[in-house]
Amino acid sequence: MMTATQVKQRSLLGLKDLDASEISQLLNRTAYWDNQKEKLTPVLEAHFISNMFFENSTRTRFSFEMAEKRLGAQVLNFTSAASSVEKGESIYDTVRTLESMGIDAGVIRLKPAGVLQQLAEKVSIPLINAGDGNNEHPTQALLDLYTMKQAFGELKGLKVSIIGDIMHSRVARSNLWALTKLGAQVQFCAPENMRASELAAYAPYVSIEEALKADVVMMLRVQLERHASDMLQSAEDYRRQYGLTEERASKLDKHTIIMHPAPVNRNVEIDDAVVESSQSLIFPQMANGVPVRMAVIERALL
Amino acid sequence: MMTATQVKQRSLLGLKDLDASEISQLLNRTAYWDNQKEKLTPVLEAHFISNMFFENSTRTRFSFEMAEKRLGAQVLNFTSAASSVEKGESIYDTVRTLESMGIDAGVIRLKPAGVLQQLAEKVSIPLINAGDGNNEHPTQALLDLYTMKQAFGELKGLKVSIIGDIMHSRVARSNLWALTKLGAQVQFCAPENMRASELAAYAPYVSIEEALKADVVMMLRVQLERHASDMLQSAEDYRRQYGLTEERASKLDKHTIIMHPAPVNRNVEIDDAVVESSQSLIFPQMANGVPVRMAVIERALL
Amino acid sequence: MMTATQVKQRSLLGLKDLDASEISQLLNRTAYWDNQKEKLTPVLEAHFISNMFFENSTRTRFSFEMAEKRLGAQVLNFTSAASSVEKGESIYDTVRTLESMGIDAGVIRLKPAGVLQQLAEKVSIPLINAGDGNNEHPTQALLDLYTMKQAFGELKGLKVSIIGDIMHSRVARSNLWALTKLGAQVQFCAPENMRASELAAYAPYVSIEEALKADVVMMLRVQLERHASDMLQSAEDYRRQYGLTEERASKLDKHTIIMHPAPVNRNVEIDDAVVESSQSLIFPQMANGVPVRMAVIERALL
Repeated sequence: MMTATQVKQRSLLGLKDLDASEISQLLNRTAYWDNQKEKLTPVLEAHFISNMFFENSTRTRFSFEMAEKRLGAQVLNFTSAASSVEKGESIYDTVRTLESMGIDAGVIRLKPAGVLQQLAEKVSIPLINAGDGNNEHPTQALLDLYTMKQAFGELKGLKVSIIGDIMHSRVARSNLWALTKLGAQVQFCAPENMRASELAAYAPYVSIEEALKADVVMMLRVQLERHASDMLQSAEDYRRQYGLTEERASKLDKHTIIMHPAPVNRNVEIDDAVVESSQSLIFPQMANGVPVRMAVIERALL
Repeated sequence: MMTATQVKQRSLLGLKDLDASEISQLLNRTAYWDNQKEKLTPVLEAHFISNMFFENSTRTRFSFEMAEKRLGAQVLNFTSAASSVEKGESIYDTVRTLESMGIDAGVIRLKPAGVLQQLAEKVSIPLINAGDGNNEHPTQALLDLYTMKQAFGELKGLKVSIIGDIMHSRVARSNLWALTKLGAQVQFCAPENMRASELAAYAPYVSIEEALKADVVMMLRVQLERHASDMLQSAEDYRRQYGLTEERASKLDKHTIIMHPAPVNRNVEIDDAVVESSQSLIFPQMANGVPVRMAVIERALL
Repeated sequence: MMTATQVKQRSLLGLKDLDASEISQLLNRTAYWDNQKEKLTPVLEAHFISNMFFENSTRTRFSFEMAEKRLGAQVLNFTSAASSVEKGESIYDTVRTLESMGIDAGVIRLKPAGVLQQLAEKVSIPLINAGDGNNEHPTQALLDLYTMKQAFGELKGLKVSIIGDIMHSRVARSNLWALTKLGAQVQFCAPENMRASELAAYAPYVSIEEALKADVVMMLRVQLERHASDMLQSAEDYRRQYGLTEERASKLDKHTIIMHPAPVNRNVEIDDAVVESSQSLIFPQMANGVPVRMAVIERALL
């Protein structure tokens, strides 16, 4: 039985509360797992992990499941679509239920703001945030940092532009907190209606032209349905003003890398031909998600 | 290959057909698994079990999966929402199909009355009832009995009140059959439109005041949508007349325990503050579901 | 790392491109696995396989999962209903994503024509076709061939009638290609609006009376909703003209076997009483699906 302090230290709710050395340690363990030749290292054979997704996801759930299974853990998937959450059961009751049944750690994705923090205070197993509302998505940011580190050797001094719907983006927030702790410089680029005013103190908003002059150009997925009544009328408008078009990509400095948390809207925030261009690290990012999550799970349970 | 008699003896369709010694034996094995320190005891490594859910469920499917995996079994989940049952395939054809493919036992939840009994006569693998219509939910009642036994040492002589929608409740029925076999005394409490006339011969209906004077107060989940046109107009009405409100809970005898099969409708059949009160065993019930199901699966396959 | 040629040789996109000896080799390995006494032969313990279903399926996904787990593989299920494919993500991006995450082989079912072929050229892991549009369903045809071989000893010289919606049937196509390569003779029977003109060169269309004079009578599932505005007004009409009614079944030669890829529409293309009649091999077909898929997966990975 872990103490409350241990549970807290082993949980990963966000990167805002971690210090630079904790983040670096996770990136070092990521490198360890990334360089591991064996696909299966069954160090967690008698450990039970539940992936609790109260919001749909392809890649994040799958990536966690790969990581868990590569460590030999017992994996139980829970998605709200096939569950009594539909019947109005609260997220809290579900998580407490699964905890009662004996899981050792929970990976959780949910939409409502603030719920994860409350949950973490009430349960006695480590929780790993797989994306909560527009708050944080720490494993995504860790894999982004790891990918940048692979490309540039170190993070200190890098200029990183994050372009798109900052307001709704947990990816932008987790990257902001982690990158600034590790000495990188973050700048945002977003239309007026997609800006997050509470983040203005941490990173400046720049024009798209300015944003493209950076070491890392990170495009965010835009969900136009969220902005139906706003000034950006259409996907085509968005692409013209903020998209990483082939034309804009051709003008990037040769050392600049292109990133995207995926899934991409091809030909909206990023052109089809750019997704797998030589400067794009979008698929390597996905590959890096697995060792990152192995490191995070190992920290939770070993 | 098991004989038809063996298959029948190893199946668990309901508690009505078991005798007291069989139920006691299952509770003894539950205690064994509950006290097992190792989380993983891989005695079923080469056994394939399918959880076949033709009706949604969070906790029951998950609890079975935990039990199966703690025993080291190979688990294959099937839910009708992701299947060709949608295309009109009958439950029978699906179960026979999965059987043909080589599963060793099936855990099954379904809605239509009588289908499980018919299925059991036609397949040659043990079936475990995970809830069939309003007929039986034997593993739920077993975990309820186990929880009561933990609280009181023995079941004989206990007075158990079951309060709520008796008519639609398989939990009430399975508890009724098992508790009376083991010498406990059951009474029901329900509004007129939620009573089951065919059970009147086995347990009396009492007022809410009377029902609260018991060793065990078991609240049932009420599904008000089933009673839309009935006399109980609203959740608030139900709560006022039959709910375990904070006020009612405060008047319970100190030794009385509160139970609920979950998921709860907080502030309908039970008040929010009562769910995790000191007399409530709702979360321990869920924990007990896992060793109960380990005992039931062990009986099916070993 | 496999070479592109190896990946191609280990993939199973269809039977049209295999030669007779490759098909025979798969049927031989099927027999090996079918005769294996041990249910679990963990030769693939450190291999990760993803079942990627972009179209619903009960039995095919389940059958593959049984096969994979009997070989000890790590299995990750992906279905589009619980995924971001809903959000417009392309099948290609999803498959590439799962590949990036380190799966060793992918079993894939999808609807759009031609996509599988394109995918196979772009990914570097073996892909196994679990049904693509109306193009091919190679493992279904292999299990059909294996079932016929069990019944008749050899395939050469057999007369096989395939009856029903040929136009939309990937099962008909895969059977046609494989059976003709192995020396069997195929004939079709279908109403005008369910015929595939491009197949007319390979197998004649015959009347229902003629079709029933065969060694194998394979009924296809009819999806009447696809033909709402066509000449066949109702299920009853279809049954009367093309269904394997009890009456028609009673006139079959005693050595003739009845097959169906399932799920069946009882009392539409086949009468209820015929499904489990003595000449029907419908459930044995399903059983044979597992060793067939073990052979196909073994070929992909070992």
